[in-house]
Amino acid sequence: MIKGLQSIAFEKAPFLINSASVVGRKEGEGLLGKLFDMIEPEDLFGENTWEEAESAMQKEACLLALGKAHLRPENIRFLFGGDLLRQGIATSLGVEELQIPMFGLYGACSTSGEALALASMSVAAGYGEYMLAVTSSHFGSAEKEFRFPLGYANQRPLSAHWTVTGSGAFIVGKKRSHVRITGITVGKIVDYGLKDSQNMGACMAPAACDTIIRNLEDFERNAEDYSRIITGDLGYVGQSILFDLMRGKGYDIKMNHMDCGMIIFDQNLQDTHAGGSGCGCAAVTLSSYILPKIECGEWERVLFVPTGALMSTVSYNEGASVPGIAHAIVLEHCE
Amino acid sequence: MIKGLQSIAFEKAPFLINSASVVGRKEGEGLLGKLFDMIEPEDLFGENTWEEAESAMQKEACLLALGKAHLRPENIRFLFGGDLLRQGIATSLGVEELQIPMFGLYGACSTSGEALALASMSVAAGYGEYMLAVTSSHFGSAEKEFRFPLGYANQRPLSAHWTVTGSGAFIVGKKRSHVRITGITVGKIVDYGLKDSQNMGACMAPAACDTIIRNLEDFERNAEDYSRIITGDLGYVGQSILFDLMRGKGYDIKMNHMDCGMIIFDQNLQDTHAGGSGCGCAAVTLSSYILPKIECGEWERVLFVPTGALMSTVSYNEGASVPGIAHAIVLEHCE
Repeated sequence: MIKGLQSIAFEKAPFLINSASVVGRKEGEGLLGKLFDMIEPEDLFGENTWEEAESAMQKEACLLALGKAHLRPENIRFLFGGDLLRQGIATSLGVEELQIPMFGLYGACSTSGEALALASMSVAAGYGEYMLAVTSSHFGSAEKEFRFPLGYANQRPLSAHWTVTGSGAFIVGKKRSHVRITGITVGKIVDYGLKDSQNMGACMAPAACDTIIRNLEDFERNAEDYSRIITGDLGYVGQSILFDLMRGKGYDIKMNHMDCGMIIFDQNLQDTHAGGSGCGCAAVTLSSYILPKIECGEWERVLFVPTGALMSTVSYNEGASVPGIAHAIVLEHCE
Repeated sequence: MIKGLQSIAFEKAPFLINSASVVGRKEGEGLLGKLFDMIEPEDLFGENTWEEAESAMQKEACLLALGKAHLRPENIRFLFGGDLLRQGIATSLGVEELQIPMFGLYGACSTSGEALALASMSVAAGYGEYMLAVTSSHFGSAEKEFRFPLGYANQRPLSAHWTVTGSGAFIVGKKRSHVRITGITVGKIVDYGLKDSQNMGACMAPAACDTIIRNLEDFERNAEDYSRIITGDLGYVGQSILFDLMRGKGYDIKMNHMDCGMIIFDQNLQDTHAGGSGCGCAAVTLSSYILPKIECGEWERVLFVPTGALMSTVSYNEGASVPGIAHAIVLEHCE
């Protein structure tokens, strides 16, 4: 069950039973637009503030995932959730009404990996029939949290990401489906000393590299043993750094690498600079685009690697570096 | 193994092998002063900022706990950690050097319960020999995060808590010790609609009440089956509300209730108003005061219930309520 230095291979691998994705307008106009469960044309989601909007979106994603799986909140044993806002308030106020016993998480944009890891660990250990993993991010609340309120209309450098307005919710359990979570690799904090909070791709690429190599070594696999290796939100800048770092360590993943931050928006028509990012980016891409391909068997085995940049406005304004973390989830097709 | 609606009773109950507490000067002058492993007379812990100080303190607590257990960081499978600061930065930058695969958590002042729950779930499931659970809070960084920078010398209402400067680290594993974690009850978010962020005792008491009753019902126990029921940081205001709420539901825990926030400072000599609070409050009290009493058998079985108020400066300034959450850990003496 324990595998190598940082991984777990589940003896009774839990199933990813169902999921849901809820996004904002810009995401709906992007490359995956037709695949999302719900696109809200008004990014305030009928609320008064960006934070409330994010909470509403997260609650909607949970309810949709529950509905698709024909489950009610009381069927879920534990909820694992998080977001990017200070004190994870979007999650606390978002899932409150569901009244599911909950574990609040923070792993920056890697949180969807962290939540899926803990949910599958809990199911595999027999701690419950069903677990719910949910994460979200919102462009308006994230800009206000980390950079400037939208009303300032500030300019963004080309290395900056566009935070995805979206929430993905996932039901993990014992009930059979066509996707199994067969293993996980828990990430370490990796710090190359970078201090540019507007270049998160560079800050996160070393962590992605570390976790991917650890996964391959722990499971004694080659990159080709995965149909795709899909990082969360390295974007255009981070991807090229990841390729360089991996090549330096003797690995070439160019042939089967994808990045959620690079496929969610249309780089030609939508000006997002380095690509999409946020807790919601990897989550909604997994739900809408990746899982269907595993379900139908087009992809046999996928390594899903959400990546996070660990920082706050206080930490980088006080001159601290921006370390990264990445968690890997092994998803496999099953009949 | 699954017990009642929200609890787990471990078949192979993990041991709480060792722990460490690191605190600041005021805590060292308090009622538990002689019991802490390390008291730092300068609250900056040799660093330049409150946030760095908190990180340094957390790292120190981890290293002390590891040392006492004769373990090195590489012996720990997973670390579960969190703090009160935005984006959990004290933890990220505090535990970074240990290079242990980590799960970042946020549960406000309930985080020590959340971390111990996940660490014991992971050990009991066979995911590793040793896990590390760590939380911290710092008066300077918390005042800056949630209220005003210390330099403003603002006045605090009598219902306000004094954030404990302290970090507690706990090694949970399979190796025998005199304390076992025999069960956990995972809390739900409980919201009575209170909006006063300066009265956290009132905001958290309903969650404590909910989790304690859930624990008693799930395990089919009476309050007297516990030597002590010890909440995290309800303080003087929260305790009396807890007693009222519990009495309204037919439970009387007055005889065996304690609150970490009420025993850490000297209410007569140290002006803390409602008592101590923070992620570190329950953690250092558990490490220094509660565990020794369980180890020696003076207390046979303790219900440890850290409580958290889920809020951010943004949420309460935008008029949101301050819901609470509490997680319960069942600690038992063993020979």
